[in-house]
Amino acid sequence: MTQTPPRAAIILAAGQGTRMKSPLPKVLHPVGGRAMLDHAIDAAEALGCERVVVVVGEHSPEVRAHVVNRLGEAAIAVQDPPLGTGHAVRAAEQALAGFEGDVVVTYGDVPLLKAADIAPVFGASGVTVIGFEARDPGAYGRLILEGDILTAITEAKEASPEVLAVTACNSGVMAAPAALLFSLLAQVRNDNAKGEYYLTDVVELARKAGHPTRAVFADEDAVMGVNAQAELAQAEALFQKVQRETFLAAGVTMSAPDTVHFAWDTQVGGGTVIEPYVVFGPGAVIEGGARIRSFSHIEGARVAAGAEVGPYARLRPGADLGRGAKVGNFVEVKNVLMAEGAKANHLAYLGDGSVGAGANIGAGTIFCNYDGFNKAQTEVGAGAFVGSNSSLVAPVTVGAGALVASGSVITEDVPADALAFGRARQTNKPQAAADFREKAKAKKEAAKAAKLK
Amino acid sequence: MTQTPPRAAIILAAGQGTRMKSPLPKVLHPVGGRAMLDHAIDAAEALGCERVVVVVGEHSPEVRAHVVNRLGEAAIAVQDPPLGTGHAVRAAEQALAGFEGDVVVTYGDVPLLKAADIAPVFGASGVTVIGFEARDPGAYGRLILEGDILTAITEAKEASPEVLAVTACNSGVMAAPAALLFSLLAQVRNDNAKGEYYLTDVVELARKAGHPTRAVFADEDAVMGVNAQAELAQAEALFQKVQRETFLAAGVTMSAPDTVHFAWDTQVGGGTVIEPYVVFGPGAVIEGGARIRSFSHIEGARVAAGAEVGPYARLRPGADLGRGAKVGNFVEVKNVLMAEGAKANHLAYLGDGSVGAGANIGAGTIFCNYDGFNKAQTEVGAGAFVGSNSSLVAPVTVGAGALVASGSVITEDVPADALAFGRARQTNKPQAAADFREKAKAKKEAAKAAKLK
Amino acid sequence: MTQTPPRAAIILAAGQGTRMKSPLPKVLHPVGGRAMLDHAIDAAEALGCERVVVVVGEHSPEVRAHVVNRLGEAAIAVQDPPLGTGHAVRAAEQALAGFEGDVVVTYGDVPLLKAADIAPVFGASGVTVIGFEARDPGAYGRLILEGDILTAITEAKEASPEVLAVTACNSGVMAAPAALLFSLLAQVRNDNAKGEYYLTDVVELARKAGHPTRAVFADEDAVMGVNAQAELAQAEALFQKVQRETFLAAGVTMSAPDTVHFAWDTQVGGGTVIEPYVVFGPGAVIEGGARIRSFSHIEGARVAAGAEVGPYARLRPGADLGRGAKVGNFVEVKNVLMAEGAKANHLAYLGDGSVGAGANIGAGTIFCNYDGFNKAQTEVGAGAFVGSNSSLVAPVTVGAGALVASGSVITEDVPADALAFGRARQTNKPQAAADFREKAKAKKEAAKAAKLK
Repeated sequence: MTQTPPRAAIILAAGQGTRMKSPLPKVLHPVGGRAMLDHAIDAAEALGCERVVVVVGEHSPEVRAHVVNRLGEAAIAVQDPPLGTGHAVRAAEQALAGFEGDVVVTYGDVPLLKAADIAPVFGASGVTVIGFEARDPGAYGRLILEGDILTAITEAKEASPEVLAVTACNSGVMAAPAALLFSLLAQVRNDNAKGEYYLTDVVELARKAGHPTRAVFADEDAVMGVNAQAELAQAEALFQKVQRETFLAAGVTMSAPDTVHFAWDTQVGGGTVIEPYVVFGPGAVIEGGARIRSFSHIEGARVAAGAEVGPYARLRPGADLGRGAKVGNFVEVKNVLMAEGAKANHLAYLGDGSVGAGANIGAGTIFCNYDGFNKAQTEVGAGAFVGSNSSLVAPVTVGAGALVASGSVITEDVPADALAFGRARQTNKPQAAADFREKAKAKKEAAKAAKLK
Repeated sequence: MTQTPPRAAIILAAGQGTRMKSPLPKVLHPVGGRAMLDHAIDAAEALGCERVVVVVGEHSPEVRAHVVNRLGEAAIAVQDPPLGTGHAVRAAEQALAGFEGDVVVTYGDVPLLKAADIAPVFGASGVTVIGFEARDPGAYGRLILEGDILTAITEAKEASPEVLAVTACNSGVMAAPAALLFSLLAQVRNDNAKGEYYLTDVVELARKAGHPTRAVFADEDAVMGVNAQAELAQAEALFQKVQRETFLAAGVTMSAPDTVHFAWDTQVGGGTVIEPYVVFGPGAVIEGGARIRSFSHIEGARVAAGAEVGPYARLRPGADLGRGAKVGNFVEVKNVLMAEGAKANHLAYLGDGSVGAGANIGAGTIFCNYDGFNKAQTEVGAGAFVGSNSSLVAPVTVGAGALVASGSVITEDVPADALAFGRARQTNKPQAAADFREKAKAKKEAAKAAKLK
Repeated sequence: MTQTPPRAAIILAAGQGTRMKSPLPKVLHPVGGRAMLDHAIDAAEALGCERVVVVVGEHSPEVRAHVVNRLGEAAIAVQDPPLGTGHAVRAAEQALAGFEGDVVVTYGDVPLLKAADIAPVFGASGVTVIGFEARDPGAYGRLILEGDILTAITEAKEASPEVLAVTACNSGVMAAPAALLFSLLAQVRNDNAKGEYYLTDVVELARKAGHPTRAVFADEDAVMGVNAQAELAQAEALFQKVQRETFLAAGVTMSAPDTVHFAWDTQVGGGTVIEPYVVFGPGAVIEGGARIRSFSHIEGARVAAGAEVGPYARLRPGADLGRGAKVGNFVEVKNVLMAEGAKANHLAYLGDGSVGAGANIGAGTIFCNYDGFNKAQTEVGAGAFVGSNSSLVAPVTVGAGALVASGSVITEDVPADALAFGRARQTNKPQAAADFREKAKAKKEAAKAAKLK
């Protein structure tokens, strides 16, 4: 058995993406809440690529910054000006100096292609192309095959009717040993209508030089490229379809799976129930046996077994719900640890702090965590009861078993088992409402009369 | 005309449902907010079955408890261990002792089969099977028919190519006179690969004994069985499709019917408008001429004509909205009677109590109905006006025509037409905000500096 | 080149619409948030029609009022009783007295037909009909054509099998010079089964009199008529499909475009991101480069570049968000100008007023704009900070740079840079919570015991 050669990936991300009509560079548009380019890098890393080089254009400093932030400067190759895909791959030659092994060329705008789809391209001695069976081959380049030997790639506009009938098409993803790839690329010429250097040409050059050329196949959906907003939406739909099927198969109950939107890294355990209309942003971890009710929005949060979220709950990063905790309607939780059985059932904002086991946060309660400059913590002890419409002005601690009267503003710590009041006494003025009504009505009529004048 | 014989149903619910990968027993998973098993029991009751027996397994005490709770102990038959469908039906023999009439065998995991689909199986002297025309017959048993005479049921794996081409398939639902059914079952043998007793075998036994055997047909969707989460979601989708079509036909306006989710018992009158993204839980009754706006969640609530709900309104059990009442955004109502024209338009929690005709509940108002141990009532009289951000601490009454000043905490009853204050006086400290800013900024910079060290 | 003759439109809107089963007259049901009749009037006006006459029935005073409100009394023609489409068009003759030019007959229940679809009917000397290729011709009248010459319209029930195979069908929309149209209509007879005067008959009468008759074609979707709630929902779906495709093509990023619902006049600039589950009512204008998060509901509001809305934000008419402004979860804004960088991130109601640049409105803040009779303004100055759970009782001004302490009720103006308090001091009662718990528990047990008796 031959040893696997080392692997590298060149990810082309220098296209301008003008058809997106968006100020955000195309490859930074997200699928499943993650930039398309990161999906491509993820696949390269999952393949065990020792080196990953991203070819960027001068026009997109944000793409460059994004890559540097994730992979470092060494991963950057610049193509300037853009003179075709072959030219783009050559731009990566220097960044791969010294690398000996197989290189695969992938794309920053092909977000659904997984490592498992790409893996078969590696380990061959010549050039290997990923093909796909096209539902509608249209303008795709056709793969001319003898068995799995790739004898040519014919562009649609140069194809005979016979060749146009071929449905095996070129995805553009291609691999070869590094030395071979760059020596072939050096021979590619730009004597075509657009004056560009095409990566595809290496197949013919390889054939002529006697190197084996072959095709392996991936699903058409997996190789789809994104060039316009409608295609981005289509990629997202395909991504969500797989996520939904995966979670259903894992035992997650969803009465309307098409209405649940997952992020690329969402984790949900079997036996959890997710009602219609739930949106997950990145970073959500839901244990099995939880219940996520309708109209909830969850990102960067952890939800333990037996916890119940929503309807209309918003969990933001750092929300951490213990077993049997409950976050109800119109409640936002950010960066708060809610211990076992803690509850905030209605209309509350809990930001920066903790709520002890079994504590109850009344309707309308606000953790006042921000004074316009600094953020501070609110700690509510186990078994405490915070009355409705209270304001807890951080930094502040409500002790275990303490009770905060409804409508209180709490600015000082409340000792354990103490009762805190921070509200005015009520006074009733008899008949004053009736008097007020008379005056308000008169004012209203006066305003009307003034308008009519 | 012959008299209809008495009817009984045996509902098989002993399967483990392991493919659901859920701790909840399969037949208790809901469709339209109601356990699949209850749908099966509903159909049996709608057919006028005198006796309904549910065959449960020892492994599912929750299923047993569910059945006992609805039908009593007499409805339980236990199959232990599970030795096939024929064995399961035999387990019900004792529970049907003394019953003379027709018995139909149905399934706790076939939630969409209605009484009208089943009714044609009754009244025949032999064995009657419900068949369906399969879009993709695959592994279903094939019904071999001569006219409507059923000559055999052939399992797919034992079928010739000719028989595999048959699209008439066996739903598994079957009826026969009780005495015949059990006498045939007693002859069923388990000399097959799995060593199980198959209910299907009674057809051949009946034929051999000279009893008539026939098939009646139901729609494939109606007989679909649920074995995995994806199938549960599919059953729900079919259920919702029928509900949506039914309400559209009844004159309910829905601009996006596919985004409205009904429960099994939802009632909506013609002329009501339902906007996109509305979820009904069980027990909702909406009169004609109401308006339910987007992102509303309604369960166990009644809404009268002319009332308006949402967007973002949550009506919970016992919410009862009179004519022209209005519950607006981010408002939760539970167990509160809102009389004609009463309004709670913004960000409020109304729990346990009543709001009189024409009363106005200000934004941010909370009915403080719970002190951690006991719940109590809040009564707001007709024409009262409760100012914004008020807390009404139950038990408490705000009299008719009374006025509660904004931001008040009301702990004592407010007489009719009185004005209640429960808030502090305002004081302004000149320049103090500017001073605060300086200090807060300094603190922020100090914190930054400390981090850098 | 011949000069374009003047144009007029007769819009038939006298049908009872009984199949809608709704108290709202059929043509007033909305598509994309706009009455179907208004879509028809829009098309007529976009065609440059000098005169637009709407034929209404006596049974629908609301339709009449709707038309008078938009077009004035002169646009009304009454058909009473309803004796067929030909009769309806004749009812408009008087209202068009003195008009010389082309008249097109359109329908108040055909909401998707645009000016561009209708335009080709004008300018011919005879009768021109809009036809469509039907996917399922069913009961539609068939257009018998020789080239684009229309030789006959044959009703389906009178058609031979040969004619039934024709898929070119009659939309009912028809145009002719005014004088010709009314002279032909005067000859139409009602000697048919229903005793009605059919507009369609003018084609045959025109042919007999030697006038040219021809057909022009529109898309089947464009000519769809709405007679039942399910068809209204279908028209809405087609409308939304076009809107979604249009905005995607314009560079709006929507990860799930099928979950975004636009109104007829929604404007969204390229580069704006719209997350799943957003509903637009009429009058929303979103600049490019904004971000609209999930579960937001926006009508009559303006959102500038760089602003962020939601999740769960409700913008109502007059909400006007400046660059970089932010309206967060469970926040409702109505008739409030939020200047550049102003923020209201959580659980607030802002009604009637303004928020200055960079000002921060704390969680739970309410603009108390209504006293039950009159509405008043709240003005918050630039850079002000309103603490959480505050109530600003309008009319009131919070000066620039001022600070409102959390939980305050503000009834008097706060000077610039001042600090305003309107809340009680906190007091802690040691052990009082523990004492309360004992009493509450005892009460609960007493209540239980009382129940058991």
